[in-house]
Parts: sequence; C-alpha cells; structure tokens
Amino acid sequence: MTLPARAQEPGTTTTIHTDDAGAVRRTVLPGGLRIITEATPAVRSAAFGVWSAVGSRDEAPADAGASHYLEHVLFKGTRRRSALEISAAVDAVGGDLNAFTAKEYTCYYARVLDSDLPLAVDVVSDMVADSVNRPEDVEAERGVILEEIHMRDDDPGDLIHDEFATALYGDTPLGRPILGTEDSINALSRDRIHGYYREHYTPSNLVVSVAGNIDHDEVVRLVSEAFAGHLTGDAEPAPPRVGGPAAPVDPRTVVIDKDTEQAHIVLGVPGVCRTDDRRFALGVLNAALGGGMSSRLFQEIREKRGLAYSVYSYTAQYADSGIFGVYAGCQPGKVDEVLSICRDEVNRAAEQSLTEEELERGKGQLRGAMVLGLEDTGSRMSRIGKSELVYESLLPVDDVLARIEAVTLDDVRAVAGEILSAPSALTVIGPVGDRLG
Amino acid sequence: MTLPARAQEPGTTTTIHTDDAGAVRRTVLPGGLRIITEATPAVRSAAFGVWSAVGSRDEAPADAGASHYLEHVLFKGTRRRSALEISAAVDAVGGDLNAFTAKEYTCYYARVLDSDLPLAVDVVSDMVADSVNRPEDVEAERGVILEEIHMRDDDPGDLIHDEFATALYGDTPLGRPILGTEDSINALSRDRIHGYYREHYTPSNLVVSVAGNIDHDEVVRLVSEAFAGHLTGDAEPAPPRVGGPAAPVDPRTVVIDKDTEQAHIVLGVPGVCRTDDRRFALGVLNAALGGGMSSRLFQEIREKRGLAYSVYSYTAQYADSGIFGVYAGCQPGKVDEVLSICRDEVNRAAEQSLTEEELERGKGQLRGAMVLGLEDTGSRMSRIGKSELVYESLLPVDDVLARIEAVTLDDVRAVAGEILSAPSALTVIGPVGDRLG
Repeated sequence: MTLPARAQEPGTTTTIHTDDAGAVRRTVLPGGLRIITEATPAVRSAAFGVWSAVGSRDEAPADAGASHYLEHVLFKGTRRRSALEISAAVDAVGGDLNAFTAKEYTCYYARVLDSDLPLAVDVVSDMVADSVNRPEDVEAERGVILEEIHMRDDDPGDLIHDEFATALYGDTPLGRPILGTEDSINALSRDRIHGYYREHYTPSNLVVSVAGNIDHDEVVRLVSEAFAGHLTGDAEPAPPRVGGPAAPVDPRTVVIDKDTEQAHIVLGVPGVCRTDDRRFALGVLNAALGGGMSSRLFQEIREKRGLAYSVYSYTAQYADSGIFGVYAGCQPGKVDEVLSICRDEVNRAAEQSLTEEELERGKGQLRGAMVLGLEDTGSRMSRIGKSELVYESLLPVDDVLARIEAVTLDDVRAVAGEILSAPSALTVIGPVGDRLG
Repeated sequence: MTLPARAQEPGTTTTIHTDDAGAVRRTVLPGGLRIITEATPAVRSAAFGVWSAVGSRDEAPADAGASHYLEHVLFKGTRRRSALEISAAVDAVGGDLNAFTAKEYTCYYARVLDSDLPLAVDVVSDMVADSVNRPEDVEAERGVILEEIHMRDDDPGDLIHDEFATALYGDTPLGRPILGTEDSINALSRDRIHGYYREHYTPSNLVVSVAGNIDHDEVVRLVSEAFAGHLTGDAEPAPPRVGGPAAPVDPRTVVIDKDTEQAHIVLGVPGVCRTDDRRFALGVLNAALGGGMSSRLFQEIREKRGLAYSVYSYTAQYADSGIFGVYAGCQPGKVDEVLSICRDEVNRAAEQSLTEEELERGKGQLRGAMVLGLEDTGSRMSRIGKSELVYESLLPVDDVLARIEAVTLDDVRAVAGEILSAPSALTVIGPVGDRLG
C-alpha cells in the first residue's frame, strides 16, 4: 500500500490505492514531472496544485527570503499572460488562486468548480513553467514583501514563532525566517531571483497534485499540454528530502522588549522529524498537553485561572528535525506565573503517564480532525502533493488511522520522556524589560 | 420558494425547498424553538449550530460586551457538565466546538462526523439551554476576555476595524466593539450576565440549524430531548430584526498614533442593509473595486506600485445599515499616496461605469465563491441558520445565483453613485503623529 519505486518509467501511470472516497493515481512524465491525483466524485470542485521542492532552508544566507520572494514574482507574468490576466482568469470563475512558501517546499494552487479545472491547470502551470520575472516586476514586488515583513512585525502573536525558530536553531537555514529580512530582501537582485527560479523549478523538482471531481487521464493530458516544451530529457523525479543527520539546535532564551499589551511566550524543544515513527505518539501527547479546550494547558491556564485567551501546544516536522512548542499570550505581569505552569505541565508530562482517558481522547482528536479535514478538496490535494514531495511513500488514510489507533500509553510516555526533558528554548515578546534576560 | 409564514404551527414541519444538494426543512417546536436543516447525503460530516438573536447592538452602554462575555461563560458548565466535560466530549470525537458573537447574533456550533451528531446535539444544546453561570466561572472568564481585548489591541490590522466602526457610527450600539472595553468588562457582574442569559436565551429567540448527512426527523427528536423541560408555552418564534429607520451615522476621521511598523488605514462609507435589493449590485462593485487580485485597488496599489501587501475592500450588512470599506496597510510615509489612490478609485467607481469585463468577472467571483463555499457543511449550517434568524425568507441557492446573474452595469453604477459619494469615515493607526488630524 505504498508508492511504487521512484524509478517508475516516465509516461506510465500507476494506481496507488483506493480508499473510501476515491482512487489515488500517479503518472511520471518525461523530464521527471510527477502527477498525483485523487478522484472524489461526490464533490463538484477540484483543487489543482503545483509543488516545488524548494523552501527557505535551501537558501544561502545571502539568498535569505528568495524562495518566498520568487513565489510572489511568479504571479507577475508569463510569456502569455500579464499579472492582471493571471488573476482575472481565476477571479472570473470565482476560484481561489494562491500560494505559500514553507521551509522545505513551495506550493501554488487554485480551487475551482470541476468544470473550470482546464482553466486552473492552464493558468497555474503557466505561472510555474513560464514565468518571465521581469526586472520591473521584481522591483515592485520588493515593496510588497517588505510590507509583508512589516505586517508580521506588527503582529506579535505571529512574530513570536519566527523568533522562536531562531532561538531554537540559531542562525541556520531552519532558524532563519521564511520571509527573509529587510536587508536580505533589499539585496536580492532580479538576476539572483531569476537564477533561483531556473535552478529549482525544473520538472524533476515539481509535483502536480489534484483532488476532487477529476479524471486522472484527463489531468495528465491537460498538464502535458500546459507544460509542453518543458517535458524533455530523461531526468528522474528528485528524491524526497529524507534522512541525513539531525539539524543542529542551540536552544537559547530570547526576550524582546516591546511596547505591546500582552506578553507573548513560546517555550519549546526539538521534536521529531517527519518520518519518525514516534510522530503518532507525539501527536497524542500534543493533543493531551495543549491541543484542544480539554487539554491540560488550556484547563490550567485559561479555564481555571483566566490567565490567557490564547494558549496551545503545537508540533512542526521537517526532514531531519522538528519542534514541540507551547504558546501563551498573557498580561506582562503574569509571565512568570504562566511560564511556571507551562514548565510544570511539560515536566509532569515528561515524568508521568497520560491517563487512559487522555490517550483515547487524543486519538479521537487526531482521527476526527483527519477525517473531517478530508472533506475539503484543498486538504486532499495538499496531503497527496506534500506526501509525494517529502515522504518516501504515501500512507493511505486507513493506514494513518491504524497508526493512530495503535499508539499506547507506553509509546506516549517514551516520546514524552525523550523529547520534553531536552534543553528548551524560550522566546518572550512584550513590555518585560530584561526581567527574564 | 420562500419560507412559510412565521405563524407555522408549533410541532409541524415544512419542506421549504430542495436544491442540487438536498432538502431544506423547518420545524417549530413548542415555546417557539425553530429547527432548520439541510440534508446533504454525499458528505460524512454534520454541522450543528444554535443561534441566539442577541448581539452587541442589543447592549446598553453599561452592558457593553455582555453578549460576547456570556458566549464565553456558556462554555464553563451546565447542571450536568463541567467545562472540562463539555470540551472533552467533543475533543474525544475529533470535532470542532466553538462559538462567535456578532453585532446582531451569537452562534454556538460543533462540526463532527455524522455518526457523532447525537453527541453534538446533546452537548451544544446543554450549554445553551442549561448554563449555570457560576460566579467563580464568571470571574475567571473576565481575565480571559480582558486578554482577548489585549490581543486585539496588539494586532493593528484587527483593531482598525473596531476603530472604524466607532468612527462611522460613533458611540452607538453599532459603533461600539463587540468585545466591550476594559472598563465595561470589569463592571459586569455575575448577576448582570446571568440576567442577560435569562432574558435572551429563551426558545423563541433561538434557532437550531443543522447541515450534512443528517435526517430532519431524527434531528427534531434529538433536539426535543436535549431541550426537554424548556419547550413549553405558546410563544411564537421572535420575528427577524428587519426594517426600522437606518442606524444613525456620524462619519469622522480618527488618527491613532501608535508605534507600529505599518500604517493601517480603513476608509469607508455607509453601505446597504441586509435586505436591500442593491446588495447584489454592491457585491459586484466590491469585487471589481477591491474583492480580489484582479480588482482595481489590488492592481493599482499592490501590483503596479508595490505599496502594500494587504489591500482590499469589503462590505458588512446589518438589519438597517451597512458598511462599504477599503483597507490598506503600508509604510507610514506612504499614507498620503495610498489614501489618494484609494480616494481616486472610489471616486472613479462612483462616477463611471465598470467595464463589461469587470461586471462579468465580478459576477463570476460571487457565483464561484458561493458554490465552492457550500461544499463545507459548516457554511451550509451557517447560511440557513443566519437566514432563519435575520431574513424574512431563505433564498434558495439557485435564486441567489439568479439575482447575481441579473445585475446590470446600470445597477452597479446606481449603487456606486448613491453610496460612494456619501461623506466617508477614515481611521488610521500608525506612527503618523497628528499629520492627518
């Protein structure tokens, strides 16, 4: 029930599996372009995505922010379309056209009515395959990126997560912000951006993923037309970014004195990498510690003491590393009290087992969130596209559910003991002076 | 194709209409409790909501924030369940349990797998019908609300919309923030909150709405059980909040000097009320002016000049009033330039017709967004519940699409001329001193 070997012959199609909703099929085109689709005939929409295997962690320090900057520039025009023609085409059919850049990949997508799929394929593929990256467009977009950085800086609940990554990973590819910095954005030239595009947006680095009321063979035909001229050579699809030594961590405490109403706190440790078998147990632990309203942190900090409006824990996974973090926003004068409760709960989770009830509730939370999420074609497109890009195999939904079901109290205790006792990084933003310095 | 007369006999059920996805049915229970359902058998989830016809505009100045405060307190416990038991029940099945308070209504909802609907009905109905509002819970939640206010204050892109409402409507029920103020929250007593609950959460003020893979008769049975003991008397359902004179406006310019990276701007005018026939034409105008990436404001301010990351126009509708507004976040030194472009585009839209292409694109945008949105059971639940509460009739989806399709260039020009030439309110938050004062 896993993906066929990466050596699948170009031009051939394989049916990977079928589940409750439809069949997942995969085709490799010449040049190494992969297409993965999931047909869910009960819906009337389709989500079309193109994924590139490049993200901010691929950037040299001088290129910081280039992946995200390029993502913006790809909306500015192709040989066939202006920026207005790109957006007008999808707006005219009421579709969502958007993109996002992560540390390890970049995705461009459109969600449309099923009858508009040919349009979505044509527009998004054109953006990705034939962008012209005109110097004047790169210049205009520089201002947009700088304003995006300023907007992030104005929202401390957003900024804190970028600051935390730096506090945990230091000035390394995983530690630097996806947006880059004002200095790095100002220094990036059109040639550098265009070179980055030429280097990373080759067919073998791209994955097309499509979900909804679609037909695989029709998608293959549309994508082959849209990428015509690019699908040559015998390149194999790029292997997923897996394995290798764990990214180095250097956990520090960073306090940023800022004139805000709340103090924003993130306390965290290295988590598990994307392919780590312990990820399901960590998911259950996360649910019990801070994943919902019934979690320990929510109950202790918000429900019983009214100290925060927003308090939660979260995980992030990368190819060779991960994050387990706790966020809270509270009164500046309550930072010590809130931090003390967070630390107590983290320590308690590291040392003692969850209750049976917490275990079952955590599993139910992961299971329900997964199944409910799959009603959205965008989520399905995202699941299969990301899997193709970053995993060695696509786990069918039923297998994921079985892995969740198999988690035991011992599994959770083991991962909690291993992870939560590691040295932690801490970031605080707020009017706290150097009290924590 | 509209709702039956409000005088529908308690205990009877009416089928309102069927459309592509399923049937909309309505039942009125004794005490005036309404149940409206839409069965969409192609999905595996169900969204269950209870709507109360009370919101912040029903608050006297001394009660400012009471609707929202009460919404929080309803999660704190009933005669049968503690706060933890409420959240744990829904977390255990991986459902979403949440609520929101608006100016004219409040909604509590859970989205779950269809097999978990009985649980969702039981938990949400219990919260709404049997809340105990203990003094100690009201106290603890006061801190949470204050932190929610502080979090809003720390996000200028959020704060600006509350400040704009005050700049347009002044110190009136529509002009005051839903969250209340620190002072009003600190002054609200448990008795006041409890009294507010007793006054507004009567069966005749409530609407239950359910969408997904559900059976109407089963929902009626479950809701009747869950509300048992409350469904007595011969009260008629409360009439929707329609008609009456337009809410008074007093458009002002408000500049809030704040040490932020960006200047955040909202420029706006009174729009149309919820039942105004011009709302479809205004929707098309909004799409063309600032509703998407192909809109005039996005093209002029972001695409051509790179002056902003976030720029858009929006509409809000109330029973007797509405808002048409434009938002942009830009460098503090560019406020004059951005405002000047916004004003130029607003004036041009007021004086000249859209192009045929903009008209068609705007219609496509509204149509596609509506149809795509209805794939989500939560959106369907919201559409029928809100309609039952605030409109005199539920427009079937096909009728909405027909109303959009019927919009002409003349209709758009007429509403633009009437609305955009009115005196505007302006709010700016940023490090701009009194330059605009």
